Amino acid sequence: MQRKSNFRDVFYVSDGTAITSETLGHAVLAQFPVEIRQHTRPFIESVERALSVQKQINHTYEQTGVKPLVFYSIVLPEVKEIIEQSQANLYDVLNALVEPLKQDLQLEPMPKLQRSHSIERDAASYNDRIAAIEYTLAHDDGISLNNLEQADVILLGVSRCGKTPTSLYLAMQFGIRAVNYPFIAEDMQSLKLPQAIEPYRYKTYGLTIDTERLVEIRNGRYANSDYSSQRQCENEVHRVEAMFRREAIPYLNTTSLSVEEISTRLLDISGLRRRMC
Amino acid sequence: MQRKSNFRDVFYVSDGTAITSETLGHAVLAQFPVEIRQHTRPFIESVERALSVQKQINHTYEQTGVKPLVFYSIVLPEVKEIIEQSQANLYDVLNALVEPLKQDLQLEPMPKLQRSHSIERDAASYNDRIAAIEYTLAHDDGISLNNLEQADVILLGVSRCGKTPTSLYLAMQFGIRAVNYPFIAEDMQSLKLPQAIEPYRYKTYGLTIDTERLVEIRNGRYANSDYSSQRQCENEVHRVEAMFRREAIPYLNTTSLSVEEISTRLLDISGLRRRMC
Repeated sequence: MQRKSNFRDVFYVSDGTAITSETLGHAVLAQFPVEIRQHTRPFIESVERALSVQKQINHTYEQTGVKPLVFYSIVLPEVKEIIEQSQANLYDVLNALVEPLKQDLQLEPMPKLQRSHSIERDAASYNDRIAAIEYTLAHDDGISLNNLEQADVILLGVSRCGKTPTSLYLAMQFGIRAVNYPFIAEDMQSLKLPQAIEPYRYKTYGLTIDTERLVEIRNGRYANSDYSSQRQCENEVHRVEAMFRREAIPYLNTTSLSVEEISTRLLDISGLRRRMC
Repeated sequence: MQRKSNFRDVFYVSDGTAITSETLGHAVLAQFPVEIRQHTRPFIESVERALSVQKQINHTYEQTGVKPLVFYSIVLPEVKEIIEQSQANLYDVLNALVEPLKQDLQLEPMPKLQRSHSIERDAASYNDRIAAIEYTLAHDDGISLNNLEQADVILLGVSRCGKTPTSLYLAMQFGIRAVNYPFIAEDMQSLKLPQAIEPYRYKTYGLTIDTERLVEIRNGRYANSDYSSQRQCENEVHRVEAMFRREAIPYLNTTSLSVEEISTRLLDISGLRRRMC
């Protein structure tokens, strides 16, 4: 089977979660005008599994006539050797940095299986993260405005502007306790900060979104409703943005931002530290 | 101020989210016996911000007498140049792979700002991901057992064994619709699959946990309660594991696994594809 030349099969192989290989592979491949089909092979911890992956890689090469790209991060030497014998273009994602670091630190690396996404790394920060997820779930979508003194950030905005995914991402990735509170149609007449939030206004950040995109998103949920109408969306966005300005709440337009971008920008604005997990 | 020699300040610098630099930096540093203090500087998109980061790096060097480590992924040439003039050990996290890829693909890279974690990358998969988060939230902790035909996985287990963080991680990172359902004390007498789940048993996976760890976690929440007692935890774990075996539901012990590890192992067992976001 012939494929067009800018099409490639990509394998991410690891004896751990393969998250590092995927992250780096995506970032590098995003720079090239190439279409990809991705295969992730985590937890390749035995010679048997390694041979099976090697076979899949070689089979893909035979099928397509084009060498697959293999991004790998493997600690076990016997597994590594087998993967490196595949008929593929091979990229060891960590090795390129290990060598210079070794020189600069004047230290020998002590590779340990699956360390970078393992629970052992730092049990305390791990527990913080789980606690942050719980806190954030309990304070999603205005469910509760109790214990706001424990919040790291309080996100405000109209319904469907990205508050919930952003809150969860902040909690999950950075161990941040995020509250989010929606302003709804009924709030529009006399829009102001809820009294419970007032004492914590220094932790509030606004999210907003272009009306056009909001109409589209809301239509995806409740088509042809008041809720998703141009008039209603425009009114809500307009009034909420005016309130952010009036109350001097810093805010961010999420229209063309991913959840990762919104989250890291909020951290950047707020000066909150990432509690890496 | 003198610090012990295996202590290093580490900067992650990017004109994007800095997520790629952080992920790779963590993975590489995990191999070295070194203590680190981390500083993340995302969205360094102007000469002005770049100079400010350069100053922070140089200041750290002056304060500690030890060169900071700088992991960076920067597209803007004028920003890159400034960071590369810092008094630090410098690691360009992508460049090491861009060169060989260029050769292998016979293509020129077309770097574009913030591409790898940007919403533009793939709008459809992005919307899938948001939908997955919503679905998963609506089906957290047994809240709803409706629309199970849309679930990708259904996680079962005792309270506090890791179901919720795992479900959210699956949704957030991989666009997977995860349902989770807890078995509680009242279920123990005649433990079985809920009737609503029965038709979808092929999508069920069990999570379990060592009793000792469960006692610890539950005590963190409700100290000295029946819920957190050794007797109750042991009983629940024992009965739920017996049911998993009786019903032939594949299960995973989460005690020493991180959320990333649980999630990627589940994907691996289930054969579900990662819908990369």
